[in-house]
Amino acid sequence: MEVKNIPIKKFLGPNFLLENEVAEELYHEFAKDMPIIDYHCHLPPADLANDRQFNNLTEIWLEGDHYKWRAMRANGVDEKYITGDGSAEEKFYKWAETVPHTLLNPLYHWTHLELRRYFDINELLNPSTAVEIYNEANTQLMEPGFSCRNILRKMNVKVVCTTDDPVDTLEHHLLLSQQYEIKVLPTFRPDKAYAVENEEVYVKYIEQLSDASGITINSYDTLLNALENRIAHFNDAGCRLSDHGLEQLYFENVTAAEVQKIFLKVLGGQALAQPEVHKFKCAVLLELCKLYHKYGWTQQFHLGALRNNNDRMMRQLGPDTGFDSIGDFSQASSLSSFLDQLDTTDQLSQTILYNLNPGDNEVIATMIGNFNDGSVAGKVQFGSGWWFLDQKDGMTRQMIALSNMGLLSRFVGMLTDSRSFMSYPRHEYFRRILCNLLGKDVVNGEVPYDIDLLGDMVKNICYNNAKDYFKF
Amino acid sequence: MEVKNIPIKKFLGPNFLLENEVAEELYHEFAKDMPIIDYHCHLPPADLANDRQFNNLTEIWLEGDHYKWRAMRANGVDEKYITGDGSAEEKFYKWAETVPHTLLNPLYHWTHLELRRYFDINELLNPSTAVEIYNEANTQLMEPGFSCRNILRKMNVKVVCTTDDPVDTLEHHLLLSQQYEIKVLPTFRPDKAYAVENEEVYVKYIEQLSDASGITINSYDTLLNALENRIAHFNDAGCRLSDHGLEQLYFENVTAAEVQKIFLKVLGGQALAQPEVHKFKCAVLLELCKLYHKYGWTQQFHLGALRNNNDRMMRQLGPDTGFDSIGDFSQASSLSSFLDQLDTTDQLSQTILYNLNPGDNEVIATMIGNFNDGSVAGKVQFGSGWWFLDQKDGMTRQMIALSNMGLLSRFVGMLTDSRSFMSYPRHEYFRRILCNLLGKDVVNGEVPYDIDLLGDMVKNICYNNAKDYFKF
Amino acid sequence: MEVKNIPIKKFLGPNFLLENEVAEELYHEFAKDMPIIDYHCHLPPADLANDRQFNNLTEIWLEGDHYKWRAMRANGVDEKYITGDGSAEEKFYKWAETVPHTLLNPLYHWTHLELRRYFDINELLNPSTAVEIYNEANTQLMEPGFSCRNILRKMNVKVVCTTDDPVDTLEHHLLLSQQYEIKVLPTFRPDKAYAVENEEVYVKYIEQLSDASGITINSYDTLLNALENRIAHFNDAGCRLSDHGLEQLYFENVTAAEVQKIFLKVLGGQALAQPEVHKFKCAVLLELCKLYHKYGWTQQFHLGALRNNNDRMMRQLGPDTGFDSIGDFSQASSLSSFLDQLDTTDQLSQTILYNLNPGDNEVIATMIGNFNDGSVAGKVQFGSGWWFLDQKDGMTRQMIALSNMGLLSRFVGMLTDSRSFMSYPRHEYFRRILCNLLGKDVVNGEVPYDIDLLGDMVKNICYNNAKDYFKF
Repeated sequence: MEVKNIPIKKFLGPNFLLENEVAEELYHEFAKDMPIIDYHCHLPPADLANDRQFNNLTEIWLEGDHYKWRAMRANGVDEKYITGDGSAEEKFYKWAETVPHTLLNPLYHWTHLELRRYFDINELLNPSTAVEIYNEANTQLMEPGFSCRNILRKMNVKVVCTTDDPVDTLEHHLLLSQQYEIKVLPTFRPDKAYAVENEEVYVKYIEQLSDASGITINSYDTLLNALENRIAHFNDAGCRLSDHGLEQLYFENVTAAEVQKIFLKVLGGQALAQPEVHKFKCAVLLELCKLYHKYGWTQQFHLGALRNNNDRMMRQLGPDTGFDSIGDFSQASSLSSFLDQLDTTDQLSQTILYNLNPGDNEVIATMIGNFNDGSVAGKVQFGSGWWFLDQKDGMTRQMIALSNMGLLSRFVGMLTDSRSFMSYPRHEYFRRILCNLLGKDVVNGEVPYDIDLLGDMVKNICYNNAKDYFKF
Repeated sequence: MEVKNIPIKKFLGPNFLLENEVAEELYHEFAKDMPIIDYHCHLPPADLANDRQFNNLTEIWLEGDHYKWRAMRANGVDEKYITGDGSAEEKFYKWAETVPHTLLNPLYHWTHLELRRYFDINELLNPSTAVEIYNEANTQLMEPGFSCRNILRKMNVKVVCTTDDPVDTLEHHLLLSQQYEIKVLPTFRPDKAYAVENEEVYVKYIEQLSDASGITINSYDTLLNALENRIAHFNDAGCRLSDHGLEQLYFENVTAAEVQKIFLKVLGGQALAQPEVHKFKCAVLLELCKLYHKYGWTQQFHLGALRNNNDRMMRQLGPDTGFDSIGDFSQASSLSSFLDQLDTTDQLSQTILYNLNPGDNEVIATMIGNFNDGSVAGKVQFGSGWWFLDQKDGMTRQMIALSNMGLLSRFVGMLTDSRSFMSYPRHEYFRRILCNLLGKDVVNGEVPYDIDLLGDMVKNICYNNAKDYFKF
Repeated sequence: MEVKNIPIKKFLGPNFLLENEVAEELYHEFAKDMPIIDYHCHLPPADLANDRQFNNLTEIWLEGDHYKWRAMRANGVDEKYITGDGSAEEKFYKWAETVPHTLLNPLYHWTHLELRRYFDINELLNPSTAVEIYNEANTQLMEPGFSCRNILRKMNVKVVCTTDDPVDTLEHHLLLSQQYEIKVLPTFRPDKAYAVENEEVYVKYIEQLSDASGITINSYDTLLNALENRIAHFNDAGCRLSDHGLEQLYFENVTAAEVQKIFLKVLGGQALAQPEVHKFKCAVLLELCKLYHKYGWTQQFHLGALRNNNDRMMRQLGPDTGFDSIGDFSQASSLSSFLDQLDTTDQLSQTILYNLNPGDNEVIATMIGNFNDGSVAGKVQFGSGWWFLDQKDGMTRQMIALSNMGLLSRFVGMLTDSRSFMSYPRHEYFRRILCNLLGKDVVNGEVPYDIDLLGDMVKNICYNNAKDYFKF
């Protein structure tokens, strides 16, 4: 296409996001065909165990995707057509109305990449194409190729790590380990085990944990025993990763007696003061981290989300429904002390730190360097752009911070972090951005044009580094 | 112009800031001719009521512009030639000496854009051109076309919202509503009504507020009554907007009895402790916001300035004289709680949040999404780059954060925020930057080249969104 | 070199980092040949006094460079080959293995720039070239041209300011002032004089300070007397600069009696509480700053490092060994109060503020404007990208923030801040980035193509501004 004198690149064409021929070469020759290790996501293992087939595009696309819900609310769509009792068709149509308003938001790219890569639908979604696209996609969704297991096969996925609560039986994972050639491994996410800020909910959770572990939890020690019991269970099911969502990594000096006292207080149904909450979380997290080290796991920390900001909608819809945002918590000092506490007794596991506020990129990019001890290349990792940062600008800034202050070459790369089977093109998105970053520096003379060196680096970041690092 | 092989773009030429032909097309075909709704500025309504004519370029340009004053101080100019008793000619000459030293600062662009758009003077200002430019501009300033009212007509302004204290009579606005086809509307800016940190000044202000409202203020309730009285008065004069300047939005749990006690204490001339100040501000602001909601207004919050840093100059020149800077206050948690408190009773008005620290861009860009309820498209807005951020880099970063984390298409766009009648080219500046942002993405294949879609988006952000949103 | 259709710029070629011909013209015609005033570094004055010659590349390159050590640790290199008892050859080889993994890190550029500018070695360092490069460089290092004094001559350095403790005798500086035509001046860095957080170490330091000054320190007043004694000594040795490393500039209201009490407490070997530490630091720093003003010095503050994060390695290797990172301390309010306190009695010296967290760029870029009083152009300076920010992205962001919010034209420019005689190409690096920033704006039509104006600006930032500002 031409406007007067200049060429206009085709939207989402083969060289999408690749700004020069070196970037194109790196992507097409080295990145594109690498398999995927999706080492952190929120896919429901039951859907894979049951090899679920989706009834329509609304179900697979809009049922659980709070990114799209937020965009629709910002576009003035009534909740009825988002999470309410609108029909699947109505909801899809409202989404189609919203899509042209998402121009320059990653949803615009994701939406059309997903239509192309899954359904081979190349039209742009808007009210005039909505019906046709809906019908075409729904027809295809009936085909066997669109079962959950086949989607992962088609997307060239080798490993998927789901996110699971310590009380989970992991029955789906165990079943899948026998029935499915793609590894579907659990990740230990014990957030509820230290969520003492709500004593009522916490007490109920501790009962569940007692049941799951078969250990009566009536003291801090028995809590830790129960948690180790679950860690062993997860480890048996192939788990090699833990994950934690926190505003910040608390660090408090606290004695065992003090933690025990706090635990008994909350177990007795009493509300805790803020300092008690932080002390308790710090203590439990340190003990958990020592257990991860014992089992040889990698630990992940997702830091900096400000969650559940809208009480009205929280009461109506619950958490993870599109009312979270980026916090501005102080991170550096307490994170440093926490990691140091583990390092000082040589109990610091491989660690991945993810920050939600891009203003923390440089804090994290330099923090990881404090605890690399030469034992493993890239032992402490700066995680890829996460949630709101999972877009071109966010991923680029993460990689630039990492490359300026650490070793990009040792990066374990991309993960979907998604609840949707439709999100695998985000790996393609990431890979294009990575190749473009390198390609631009080559053409500018800031990186030598050594295609073997660069090609290896690309393949490593796309797949090999994760393979070597996690050893699934 | 050519250096060896490459074309050099003409400085401030017709395609200034437009880096490709799509950007040019968008600007010239869609943006350039849209009218202006200047929904937030600090123009003196008296100047419009009196249709003031300026005597010379120093008067219209340098009399109240603390951006220029700061630059002159940084350039080593003595205060005599800035705010002191230097002559108009001397001050202008010192500014002309400073201008070449402002290369790469937005002042360099603004200065020359203003000379071109108002006076058709295309020369660059420096000591060698100063006398000629001064004389030429002064001659033109004598012409009727340079009266305040005619300047706004020439600049294609449809609505101007000034910034006014609750005790203001609004006499100028009322006069203008009868004499002037351009809407000049007041904005309710009640900062002094909760500025309890200085009890002496505050007590005097409360007397003024009593007088203005005709309500004797001797309790917290009567304070609120007086404020509602003024809100009604402003509403009658066409006001549809409030505005607030705050370091951060305080959020404190406080009972009515406690606020009453704090108010009586300060009214009695006693100094308050910091927590009392914050509690009082939070309480009054929440009540004000409920009143704005009752009247159907939009509320604005300008967050994060660290003001009056230089005590010596504060004593000499007073506030707003160029001694303010960017703070690094924590914003997210308390802002969230404040907005949520209003939302929970369905009393959250349309809201525009402006941050001064660009490090808060992503906090704000995601915060707005927490309170969009589908009732109005773009109900909670991320305000355009403000004050120190009102330049290419700041505006671009604001739009990139907004587009990545929200809907750029629903953005109400630019405002001058200026004390000067010479600042209208900042709308042109903004529009060029907007069109360039879109044009670059089109040419890179990141946005489809659908000129109708893009042209509408541009026109909406330049004018239509503000028109629909504010309903002046 | 060509890939299909596009030219690929030669890595580290003559126009490295210069993206167009205006940038090239500015660099080659104006920047390249300007002398260097290295007004802040950590070179050991003894090496210059003794005119040290290095035995091999490991010694000059790897012996004290914690940037390289961090990269090696991140690359999985055992500490034996970093700071341990590995041989010089082994260590060099481990570094050579690491270099290809630093692609996109500034170390990759610095390494190859240094090989080229010092040794005329144009090959890329990697395991296959390591032996050859090591031998070639070692041969050259034997030559007289590689003595420390000759290195500075070759690099066109006019002034070097080292970083020195108040107890230093300055014997090397005094010797050099008689034997060396390049000015090697001390900088007064009194961090230990207020490091009261560790009372044991502090008490010992105070003994040293007593000895050095000949003043028995047994009270706060005698501490200040001893410090002034050392300032006078430094001043006699040509010192015109002080420097301070702080997490943040503390500001506390504190009486003389209170400081005296705190000082006697710590002198008595008692540990201080955190607020006492901050109060003491603030008080001493204010007094020091008044002395700097009395002596007409410039004061520097390096703000925001989070140091010594790894206790295990701190015990093993001591400070400054690669275990520091970027903090996220709040800076604005206390920094403003501190500077204002000095300004209010007209005792604010020329000041340079360096921030380590790039998120503070805009806070600092606007803070400096609060205290420019017109007495000196650029009186309060925003220091160049420091430590982790001393790379293309960091330097560019610093200059963009400064230019948007202050006067880039008045910037005193680059310094090495290095412990290594091999770091002088960082001035070249900075100059290329500066010229590129200007050149891009010219070609884009955002700056007029006035080569005299631009050339002067470049020469000023490279050398003349520092010359005029410091008056060494």
